[in-house]
Amino acid sequence: MNKKLKVLVASLLGTSIVLSGCGKEDTAIEKEVEAQTTASTETKQPEVIAPHKDLNQEPVPLKIERVSENVVNVEMTAQITDIEIDKDYTYKAWTFNGEAPGPVVVVNEGDTINFTLKNMDPVIPHSMDFHAVHAAPSKDFANVNPNETGTFSYPANKPGVFMYHCGTAPVLTHIANGMHGTIIVKPKNGYPHDKEIDREYLIIQNEWYKYNDLDDFTNGVPSQVVFSTKALEEGAQNTNGDTFTLKDKPLLAKIGDRVRLYVNNVGPNEVSSFHVVGTIFDDVYIDGNPYNHMQGLQTVMLPASGGAVVEFTVTREGNYPIVTHQFNHATKGAVAYLKVTATGEDDGEAVGGH
Amino acid sequence: MNKKLKVLVASLLGTSIVLSGCGKEDTAIEKEVEAQTTASTETKQPEVIAPHKDLNQEPVPLKIERVSENVVNVEMTAQITDIEIDKDYTYKAWTFNGEAPGPVVVVNEGDTINFTLKNMDPVIPHSMDFHAVHAAPSKDFANVNPNETGTFSYPANKPGVFMYHCGTAPVLTHIANGMHGTIIVKPKNGYPHDKEIDREYLIIQNEWYKYNDLDDFTNGVPSQVVFSTKALEEGAQNTNGDTFTLKDKPLLAKIGDRVRLYVNNVGPNEVSSFHVVGTIFDDVYIDGNPYNHMQGLQTVMLPASGGAVVEFTVTREGNYPIVTHQFNHATKGAVAYLKVTATGEDDGEAVGGH
Amino acid sequence: MNKKLKVLVASLLGTSIVLSGCGKEDTAIEKEVEAQTTASTETKQPEVIAPHKDLNQEPVPLKIERVSENVVNVEMTAQITDIEIDKDYTYKAWTFNGEAPGPVVVVNEGDTINFTLKNMDPVIPHSMDFHAVHAAPSKDFANVNPNETGTFSYPANKPGVFMYHCGTAPVLTHIANGMHGTIIVKPKNGYPHDKEIDREYLIIQNEWYKYNDLDDFTNGVPSQVVFSTKALEEGAQNTNGDTFTLKDKPLLAKIGDRVRLYVNNVGPNEVSSFHVVGTIFDDVYIDGNPYNHMQGLQTVMLPASGGAVVEFTVTREGNYPIVTHQFNHATKGAVAYLKVTATGEDDGEAVGGH
Repeated sequence: MNKKLKVLVASLLGTSIVLSGCGKEDTAIEKEVEAQTTASTETKQPEVIAPHKDLNQEPVPLKIERVSENVVNVEMTAQITDIEIDKDYTYKAWTFNGEAPGPVVVVNEGDTINFTLKNMDPVIPHSMDFHAVHAAPSKDFANVNPNETGTFSYPANKPGVFMYHCGTAPVLTHIANGMHGTIIVKPKNGYPHDKEIDREYLIIQNEWYKYNDLDDFTNGVPSQVVFSTKALEEGAQNTNGDTFTLKDKPLLAKIGDRVRLYVNNVGPNEVSSFHVVGTIFDDVYIDGNPYNHMQGLQTVMLPASGGAVVEFTVTREGNYPIVTHQFNHATKGAVAYLKVTATGEDDGEAVGGH
Repeated sequence: MNKKLKVLVASLLGTSIVLSGCGKEDTAIEKEVEAQTTASTETKQPEVIAPHKDLNQEPVPLKIERVSENVVNVEMTAQITDIEIDKDYTYKAWTFNGEAPGPVVVVNEGDTINFTLKNMDPVIPHSMDFHAVHAAPSKDFANVNPNETGTFSYPANKPGVFMYHCGTAPVLTHIANGMHGTIIVKPKNGYPHDKEIDREYLIIQNEWYKYNDLDDFTNGVPSQVVFSTKALEEGAQNTNGDTFTLKDKPLLAKIGDRVRLYVNNVGPNEVSSFHVVGTIFDDVYIDGNPYNHMQGLQTVMLPASGGAVVEFTVTREGNYPIVTHQFNHATKGAVAYLKVTATGEDDGEAVGGH
Repeated sequence: MNKKLKVLVASLLGTSIVLSGCGKEDTAIEKEVEAQTTASTETKQPEVIAPHKDLNQEPVPLKIERVSENVVNVEMTAQITDIEIDKDYTYKAWTFNGEAPGPVVVVNEGDTINFTLKNMDPVIPHSMDFHAVHAAPSKDFANVNPNETGTFSYPANKPGVFMYHCGTAPVLTHIANGMHGTIIVKPKNGYPHDKEIDREYLIIQNEWYKYNDLDDFTNGVPSQVVFSTKALEEGAQNTNGDTFTLKDKPLLAKIGDRVRLYVNNVGPNEVSSFHVVGTIFDDVYIDGNPYNHMQGLQTVMLPASGGAVVEFTVTREGNYPIVTHQFNHATKGAVAYLKVTATGEDDGEAVGGH
């Protein structure tokens, strides 16, 4: 506050002041002003759409089944489920399968995906936009109405690490409320170092904003930026992906392991500068396509929705923080740990803060 | 400040002040306070430089003429022209040739450009910085004074999709007020898939801020983020480029077409995560240089001023939204549509919101 | 709104105050309110940690010594030193060796670095995270306590332009307060055009925020974005790097020179769109690794912490501004000049504003 303004304020104290907000937040400001003038001193609860209010739908597991050599049936559920996104902070998320990010889907290059979307949301249509497929969005990514089921079919013929998300307007609201995740299309001819890989993990970055607040989604800065992981093991994609707090529970590796990370930044708004402390990536494949090969990167630039495969070797015992090097975002939560031990098992020691 | 809030404020004036804003907006706050204490309830009009006030100069067409095998004469005009940048919102833009972005300039690798800049702005010097050329900026991108004409000559010997913009200080003000555009330098040996291309379009992304407000340009978030296109057809660059609202009027393709997009993010501030819903780019050339080849990208990272050539094949009939996947920016307007029909002609059906 | 503030508001209701504002700035608002209610009209000084208050430690030169063919001893000092980051604005920076960015460290691919960190800070532990090495961060980048010395050893076996920074929690505070710099690992087999390089310079981009203000670091926009350079000449790394205002003192080249820039964006938060006005990069090596070769780029996208080697040829006499084309950041200071003369010497003429 500059001097002139301060003097002005001082001269008026005792009568009345309205201090408010910024930029394009007029609506929010107005609401707050109204709330205040009715003498409410309570923190206004984020507005939950009425029919969602007491809804917390049990996560329905992802169904994925290979029905022939190149055909995979995938069934997902749009549902409203409470997600703990920060210590003691639960977000009544719009989700795929009760997770945010949703469960990872893993298919092979050349597969046709027969996709079923069940919409358990009682009021809002949802849809599925897989970045991994060729499709006509206005038809193949069409809305599925509340309590209905839609079926779609499309090919996944490019390898890579792709985002998926609800594509229903306003798209930003659907993504920011939690409807995003990762689909991995394994390359037909593999990656050059497949045989040397000892461990592989998926790390997804996403941001959270004020609850269901399109204005904050559009003009604000994220409240939380977080990393999640999902189980990648064969068959594990048939069950619910494991979403845990990566800051507390480390990923694991053994001294000498070559580690592969599938990385995906699902946004909705921010780019990511993906970095693992203590190592340099031996090989990087932008968007996970083996053709897009880089070497010796300290940090990978991920656009919003962008993916990568990164591989590196850990040579010493200890904890390796994984961050976005946009450190305001790391400070808001986007930190994970890779713990390297002699055995590859967790020694139980706490990983440090970063 | 919206109307309702303003009324509220007005009703409290005398006993009350509205203080607002955040961060570095002290000047803006102060102005608002002053406005309020003088009991004005009018929306403050953006400050237009006095001699621009009633100016709305008729767009002067770009002139481009090939005078010998490797020499092209290009003439452009700096002028003040009203541009509709949002529904019912006209911006008295600082422009090249009455458009913002300005008309596309297309030349060939190896050309020498003899460039003439006519400055019709009655008060402010302007200049031209082509990213496509080798030049000494302090001389070859020098200011042209009001009502004067400058001539310059420089080679365009690298292929690609380049930004151009006014380089007069403060550069940010000149770009943010509208003085930007794209120059394409066609590669001598073409792109690998030239013969397979059925359609090609140019898409330019830029942001708009509060009118002529350097503080908002420097510290704010964009009010609008938009896509524009320009005619690319042979000879079409001799006439005024076609700037239309891409959200309403789709680009067109036929089922099976291989589509090429020339893409350029002219900023002034934001990076772009360029994505076409429903497809994956077969081939991408960063900054439009054939050497910088990537494959199978879902999304292309464009720095501020960065360009790309992206190519993809559309296999199904329907509408394909084109976005920056930084969805706060898509929400602010950066959406276009590619409509794919059996004939390649527009069927007249509306494209949906995104 | 936090509890304390709510109470304050409640106690004043009736005469009525509405405090609102944006994002996560409640603490800042509260401070301001407290300041106002005590009728203070002074600008609040940024809070300097008490034992730092009158501290301005004389810069201790970097020590670097090659002790055998592949072993280099490097000694650096964590210290509190005043840095002029803007006209008449001194920042009591947390530094390496009294500089921010710290001195450049240049080693060869394959070197082992024996590293010593002397911590002259009387109160805060510091540490060193070299992006150039393979190390277990929890041990090899461990904290060195106030007035203590730590020694570490690790290999630098990947070539490139890497960031270094203090890795002590909260990492964002340590980087944003000034503890960052660049380490260059020269490639064993060189870069393809080594023999044609006439000049080479290092340019480092970093942002500054409100003094030692983690909330502003995390949620604010930068107050300054600046470029620095450091001496690269053989042996020069034994002495204090030369940090000067690049906007006033140009880098130099001769007409026809092929110029190489080592570039590093040390953040802490922002990405960079690195561009030299008047030229196009002939060759770019992402993160400085010769494998990651691109050609003909107008602008290089640097993630937070990312590096690059860019090479270009200057063909005409004059001044070439160097910027991040995210022009809000250029406006905040991230501008340098390359002056090209017939002799390669400075002709003494001022370089213009941009």
